[in-house]
Amino acid sequence: MQKISRRDALKMSLAGAGALALGGVNANAATNEKEVKFDEEYDVIVIGSGFAGSMATLKALERGLKVLMVEKMGRSGGNSVINVGNMAVPNNEYQKEKGIKDSKELFIADCLKDGLNLNHVDLLEVIYDRANEAYEYLKTIGVEFSSKVISASGHSVMRAVQVKVASGSGYIRPMHKKIEENPNALIKKRTKFDEFVLDESGRVVGVKCRENYKFDGELKSDDLENTSGEVKFIKAKKGVILAAGGFSSDKWFRAQQVPYLKTDIDTVSQPGATAGALTAAINIGANPLLLSWIQLNPYTNPTEKGFGTSAVFTNHCSNDYGLSVNPKTGKRFMNEHAGRKIKCDAIFKVMAEGANNDNYPVNICDQAAVDANNPLYTSKGVESGSIKKFNTLEELAKAYGIPVEPFLKTVADFNGYVKEGKDPEFGKPLAKADVHGIDVSKPPFYASLSMPKILYCMGGVQINAKAEVISMNTQKPIPGLYACGEITGGVQGGGRLGTMSMSDCMVFGMIAGENV
Amino acid sequence: MQKISRRDALKMSLAGAGALALGGVNANAATNEKEVKFDEEYDVIVIGSGFAGSMATLKALERGLKVLMVEKMGRSGGNSVINVGNMAVPNNEYQKEKGIKDSKELFIADCLKDGLNLNHVDLLEVIYDRANEAYEYLKTIGVEFSSKVISASGHSVMRAVQVKVASGSGYIRPMHKKIEENPNALIKKRTKFDEFVLDESGRVVGVKCRENYKFDGELKSDDLENTSGEVKFIKAKKGVILAAGGFSSDKWFRAQQVPYLKTDIDTVSQPGATAGALTAAINIGANPLLLSWIQLNPYTNPTEKGFGTSAVFTNHCSNDYGLSVNPKTGKRFMNEHAGRKIKCDAIFKVMAEGANNDNYPVNICDQAAVDANNPLYTSKGVESGSIKKFNTLEELAKAYGIPVEPFLKTVADFNGYVKEGKDPEFGKPLAKADVHGIDVSKPPFYASLSMPKILYCMGGVQINAKAEVISMNTQKPIPGLYACGEITGGVQGGGRLGTMSMSDCMVFGMIAGENV
Repeated sequence: MQKISRRDALKMSLAGAGALALGGVNANAATNEKEVKFDEEYDVIVIGSGFAGSMATLKALERGLKVLMVEKMGRSGGNSVINVGNMAVPNNEYQKEKGIKDSKELFIADCLKDGLNLNHVDLLEVIYDRANEAYEYLKTIGVEFSSKVISASGHSVMRAVQVKVASGSGYIRPMHKKIEENPNALIKKRTKFDEFVLDESGRVVGVKCRENYKFDGELKSDDLENTSGEVKFIKAKKGVILAAGGFSSDKWFRAQQVPYLKTDIDTVSQPGATAGALTAAINIGANPLLLSWIQLNPYTNPTEKGFGTSAVFTNHCSNDYGLSVNPKTGKRFMNEHAGRKIKCDAIFKVMAEGANNDNYPVNICDQAAVDANNPLYTSKGVESGSIKKFNTLEELAKAYGIPVEPFLKTVADFNGYVKEGKDPEFGKPLAKADVHGIDVSKPPFYASLSMPKILYCMGGVQINAKAEVISMNTQKPIPGLYACGEITGGVQGGGRLGTMSMSDCMVFGMIAGENV
Repeated sequence: MQKISRRDALKMSLAGAGALALGGVNANAATNEKEVKFDEEYDVIVIGSGFAGSMATLKALERGLKVLMVEKMGRSGGNSVINVGNMAVPNNEYQKEKGIKDSKELFIADCLKDGLNLNHVDLLEVIYDRANEAYEYLKTIGVEFSSKVISASGHSVMRAVQVKVASGSGYIRPMHKKIEENPNALIKKRTKFDEFVLDESGRVVGVKCRENYKFDGELKSDDLENTSGEVKFIKAKKGVILAAGGFSSDKWFRAQQVPYLKTDIDTVSQPGATAGALTAAINIGANPLLLSWIQLNPYTNPTEKGFGTSAVFTNHCSNDYGLSVNPKTGKRFMNEHAGRKIKCDAIFKVMAEGANNDNYPVNICDQAAVDANNPLYTSKGVESGSIKKFNTLEELAKAYGIPVEPFLKTVADFNGYVKEGKDPEFGKPLAKADVHGIDVSKPPFYASLSMPKILYCMGGVQINAKAEVISMNTQKPIPGLYACGEITGGVQGGGRLGTMSMSDCMVFGMIAGENV
């Protein structure tokens, strides 16, 4: 590795100064191609190894390109491997089998509702048009799906597919296997992308990164303070694809955008989800969109860390099929099928009735609801203790200190609504969402607690329908730079629907790999 | 003016190439000090000539500094001169006179409510602590205020002062007079700031700008396409203060952040309110906060362009003291004293009842409400025709096609609420806000229509309590760079209260001028 810095070059040419050590850094964190000698060369460099980066890599490899994937952490897959593995796929085979009518209008209307009209509709159209193609492709490389279509938060029809193992690793494993089999591909873990290398026209022609980097979650800011690893300059002849995910674990960055997230609020993201790659892109002009829109997960559990083992049960078994109650009153308090922001706000309100913000809502369902979903959604939590199992509703109520009679009335009322297909209290879409209610004659019954945790960054760099990154300075694509997945902003507007992250990652990953 | 570009320098030193013409631009739009020879030198350069920039200039001049103010437009004052001129000043003399109790807690709670908890509270504290000092200073330099304290949108107590001439020019004129009298000050109009000049440590040491620049509102993007003027490099020994305002008139930039603002929706801002200065700051690492929060004005009138002549009447005479009705029903439809976003959403809903989104709400008040405010608030609109005057409420109803009987019942009900001091329908704070109701025995009555227009950008670069611009790359101040006013983000969170823009501009302008 050899580097002649711009400053030194300027000194040589203009000032004639010697090798003065310079303490400061130019805030413009990008390197000029003329200043470096590349250590390695590929057609494409992909930054990040989750859904979006993996799909981009596979599609670039299909075109015969030589691809380097860099991942800063010691394990591949980022947040994607701790994702639950459901993907919104309009017009998928099971939707057709069940006779569920979907349409572009309906899909976009659903997204815009939770997205508060802040979504870039042209990008939603691309997802609608191509999600099924991505899904069908994933099957061909060995991703195994359950034979059903499921309901998910904020969607007005069932349109999500489920991966069999109930975890994003069900995608990442076969995807990475396929990548690793390809002689044109190389995955470098513990390799931290630091900044872009630009040529004189402003085109992205490579990256500055560090190999043998060791992420340190104990640092206040790993991006700022961690100097581990050896610097390498790597050339990308065709382009760089940014697929580095969100910044949910970046305590400083997220708290500037959303000050009330500055406390020690928990997140479901892996600790490496920081803003360094995003800011490197903004430093070269990438238009930052919607950075202040950070989604919380209304399904997570106060009795365990991070995403935990009950969130998927709470989401799909209880919230989709059953009901949630306020333990102080035994009454429902929200449309359990509403969008995430609406639910988080409602949960925070219930929690605030506790002396220490700890009046956590109780999420309930029956055995039929468990059976309607992947059994792993429930068994993992029952095993870890985050989901409790009861023989009677009375036992359940007592265990959580819920007043029994009001609670039983709530369940009876809810069952009545299910029969009628209409929820007069909170407008839960009972007819459409295949809700069972609680069959009180068929124990056992299941319950979990919920407390919102930081889930997802809607904001990020702007892309167009070709996954090209748009410059705020030129209003045009930054040549050589593509992005996909959570690091982009615009697709999800101000609120992402459940299962839409995967659709976003897979479709725009595919497109980035096709276009780079 | 002499410039050796970085590219040329690099070529000389490394590649030895000749004078190749390069079409592209490096997206990193900042200049290295080594590449330029400064044409002029000041202690401080202030970018923008509105409230914030003028206050910053005055305070820097007080310290004996040599200050250059650059303004890209042909006239000074930006949006500030077309502002209505009311300023929230907690603990001002008239509040004390009237025995109105204010407190930091109340002030911050009001701001956080409309700001959706996205405000940086440390910055709100600074405004609370120092707004009265700014107000008292403004009086000493000749700004003339009415002897009253008024109510304003979203504030739970009356805390705003009114400038006598009912226009922001009532501040800008004396402020600029004072600036122009000072031999250490120079104002350059038609001078466009293009980018910052940094030294090797990353410190802002000057600007690249263009003199004799001619803004062209007909261009799709003036920032991108307008090449007029002669380039000058100007040194700022102490620092640069960015006070260039918001981007409400930047059709491209605002529509990327908030896609539903992409249509030909009108704005109350002057045409020069574009994003160029903001993006130049982001290009050198300034942390972009809350860019997707753009406020609409619920008071503007569909029968005239821009801010027009009736908005201040609608806001202060009708919405504060009177009522608004849906012309289709004759009924009220909102808390007329709610925050701006709530009101805009309610107005859009009423408008949508018209075939062409044109069922505009009618805003009504009586003579007493007009008399309670600056008479110019009403006389200008009556003169231009944007406010209509009627001898009876029946006449008023007929003129707008409002069903008479329901309308009269609405007025009678509203008067009842005023007597009771409580609005059971929409929760308008009648007791606190000194609301008169409509005295049906005392004509004339006044009415205007309303349609929301783009008003204000809550987002911008991050600053700290010293008005230093915070870098997303270092999490620390960018040395030599200060910002104040609408170009900053964080103070107003996701929603600015009425009269809070001026407090923000004046207080942080003062602080920037003190600290630079």
